[in-house]
Amino acid sequence: MVDVMRAARHTSIAPIDGGITAPTGFRSAALHCGIKPKAGALDLAVLAVDTFASMAGLFTTNLAQAAPVLVSRRHLEVTRGTGCAIVVNSGCANACTGEEGLANARRMTEEVASALGCEPEQVVVASTGVIGVALPIDRVVAGIHEACSSLSHGTGSEAAQAIMTTDPFPKEHAVRVTTPHGSFSIGAMAKGSGMIEPNMATMLGFITTDAQVDPAMLQRALAESARDTFNAITVDGECSTNDSLFAMASGVSGVAIDEELYPALLDGLLSVSRPLALGIVRGGEGATKVIAVSVYDARTVDDARQVARTIANSPLVKTAVHGADPNWGRIVAAAGRAGVRFDMQRVTVRIGGILLFENGLPHDESAPRAAEILTRDSVDIEVSLGTGNASATIWGCDLSAEYVRINGEYRT
Amino acid sequence: MVDVMRAARHTSIAPIDGGITAPTGFRSAALHCGIKPKAGALDLAVLAVDTFASMAGLFTTNLAQAAPVLVSRRHLEVTRGTGCAIVVNSGCANACTGEEGLANARRMTEEVASALGCEPEQVVVASTGVIGVALPIDRVVAGIHEACSSLSHGTGSEAAQAIMTTDPFPKEHAVRVTTPHGSFSIGAMAKGSGMIEPNMATMLGFITTDAQVDPAMLQRALAESARDTFNAITVDGECSTNDSLFAMASGVSGVAIDEELYPALLDGLLSVSRPLALGIVRGGEGATKVIAVSVYDARTVDDARQVARTIANSPLVKTAVHGADPNWGRIVAAAGRAGVRFDMQRVTVRIGGILLFENGLPHDESAPRAAEILTRDSVDIEVSLGTGNASATIWGCDLSAEYVRINGEYRT
Repeated sequence: MVDVMRAARHTSIAPIDGGITAPTGFRSAALHCGIKPKAGALDLAVLAVDTFASMAGLFTTNLAQAAPVLVSRRHLEVTRGTGCAIVVNSGCANACTGEEGLANARRMTEEVASALGCEPEQVVVASTGVIGVALPIDRVVAGIHEACSSLSHGTGSEAAQAIMTTDPFPKEHAVRVTTPHGSFSIGAMAKGSGMIEPNMATMLGFITTDAQVDPAMLQRALAESARDTFNAITVDGECSTNDSLFAMASGVSGVAIDEELYPALLDGLLSVSRPLALGIVRGGEGATKVIAVSVYDARTVDDARQVARTIANSPLVKTAVHGADPNWGRIVAAAGRAGVRFDMQRVTVRIGGILLFENGLPHDESAPRAAEILTRDSVDIEVSLGTGNASATIWGCDLSAEYVRINGEYRT
Repeated sequence: MVDVMRAARHTSIAPIDGGITAPTGFRSAALHCGIKPKAGALDLAVLAVDTFASMAGLFTTNLAQAAPVLVSRRHLEVTRGTGCAIVVNSGCANACTGEEGLANARRMTEEVASALGCEPEQVVVASTGVIGVALPIDRVVAGIHEACSSLSHGTGSEAAQAIMTTDPFPKEHAVRVTTPHGSFSIGAMAKGSGMIEPNMATMLGFITTDAQVDPAMLQRALAESARDTFNAITVDGECSTNDSLFAMASGVSGVAIDEELYPALLDGLLSVSRPLALGIVRGGEGATKVIAVSVYDARTVDDARQVARTIANSPLVKTAVHGADPNWGRIVAAAGRAGVRFDMQRVTVRIGGILLFENGLPHDESAPRAAEILTRDSVDIEVSLGTGNASATIWGCDLSAEYVRINGEYRT
């Protein structure tokens, strides 16, 4: 937040239309190639840059990594973060598919490269959908060639739909960043976790910008912005085999990002990422409320984040919020088992700004007002640890019977 | 398990009646003192030993520790593990109750001591129930004196009922351990997590034996047996403010436990603890199935336990089991995010003995048979990591809409 304020002194940021194709130099195409059974359901998208772009990527920390993750990581290493296109499919995660899966992920990059006239290593790939099932590769290849021959400006919204599984709504956003040294745009799309068929929640995110950013700085800005957005959300504490976040910088705007302009780039990335991350939470499986858990006065940011994450993932806290129960006891107990040292006597707990626990004692007289606030669809939980000055926020959602229904239905 | 087999060579263990008063030298009394609103509902128990006993205790690792936990820890330290009685109440956890709560917990031990003619430090106390509410101390004190004047042999079952909150059934067990050096008995009772009103799951366990065991060895045996029983279960990954497990050894049997007989003691403790621990899981909030997650071929026991615990606490695995979905993908993904290094290509996953994942590839042809097995009320999940020879089992339960209903109901 410090960086945002620093940049904001000389930078203005305004929302614009267009999603990932809002920045100049990017074209996209989306179509139904036949992975999803439903006729016409978009299941393939290609995003290409007119010139070569800087590229950056962040991937799942799960040991079980899907074939497209393994291939994309390798390609970013080989090219040291330069490339020309991203290909994404939905309906099949290409995960737990062995050697055939790796060959299919490589094949997708090869076909895009041959259609666009670049090297396969300059293409990255992402997949989301059912795991343990092979891609219908012939249909995917045909779709790739059709998409590459119909790339257009202004088609970002279709790409945002093509990456959805059972997300309740598409998620895209774009902004115009105006600095004393010129203007550039940032666009983004994401998909989240609201799926029955895939049996696993995959987060995919794609960010484009026409700023001129070298690959190392793009990677740094992507990681820094993700820390407080895509990596600060949780639906159920799970981490999928396919989670990926990519950024591409075309440089077409001519605005070169140096250390002076870095805060403006970061500010812009945060501006497009935050609404998408919150959209993923709001579209979480069975979610009816977004819960922002903020931990203040911690010794370190890591401490604050760890306590906030433990509270946001606590089944007892999540069900209490679902039931509009201002149950500070469950919040205190979750904080207490987070593995972070603090003195419970100095802890305060607030729900919606209302003080419920202080000096080791409850303020039960305030419970009815907090219960009223908990009926809203956005809830703030604030915990002060009293051990320092660091803080962090994690966004999660409530746990409903609908989550159990969605995830408990038999797959076959 | 090695210790159990070693001891089993010369030891026989047979179940007996009587719960915590099965071992000689122990008397108990249980009554309704008026903490629970319902007339006649047992809410107070006193367990006393005729002579002085060795005592041991294990407590919640949560930073938020209830007053009875703080007082009991202190008393065991002061007496170096000797004592004469335990007092337990249900209906009020005496947690988050500040200085008044500490004074009330101390008062309970003082009243027992004055009634029985020992020192307050020789008494430990446990509470379970609503948190953030003060004990009705006058009623508790009157109840303590009434209980201490009516202590009897053979009343263990009433004590097992008096410690319940909304547990669906009481949990007690006792065994007779016969060794070449004589026989001794072990009795136990426990309460678990199946509660609406307390808003938090508290595990309480109490073990008695008439073996002669010095306090240090009793503590060691209690910790070792709990590792594979009470500390190897999970209902929802939460850890309460009041969790406590106590053991008392009267020595009345005259069988002195030395290193040679230690395995027999451990074997006996495991024999009484395992059914109670599984009873807690089976009585878990909304649980319809017990899930035994066993991880084999791990580098260390800690690795095996960490992976097993992550799988057992995974909401996606728990809901899949609830819905009888043989979803090996969720098991693989949970294992992969457990923070333990292994090669996914060498992992195998079995449900009910049926191989579903091997060499990085699924065996979907076996899914229907595994789905059939998942309709039973006990489910085995077995994961081999292929990195060593260590193994561990964690027992958990499924996640049902009933869990959400129980925990989502508004408290007031």
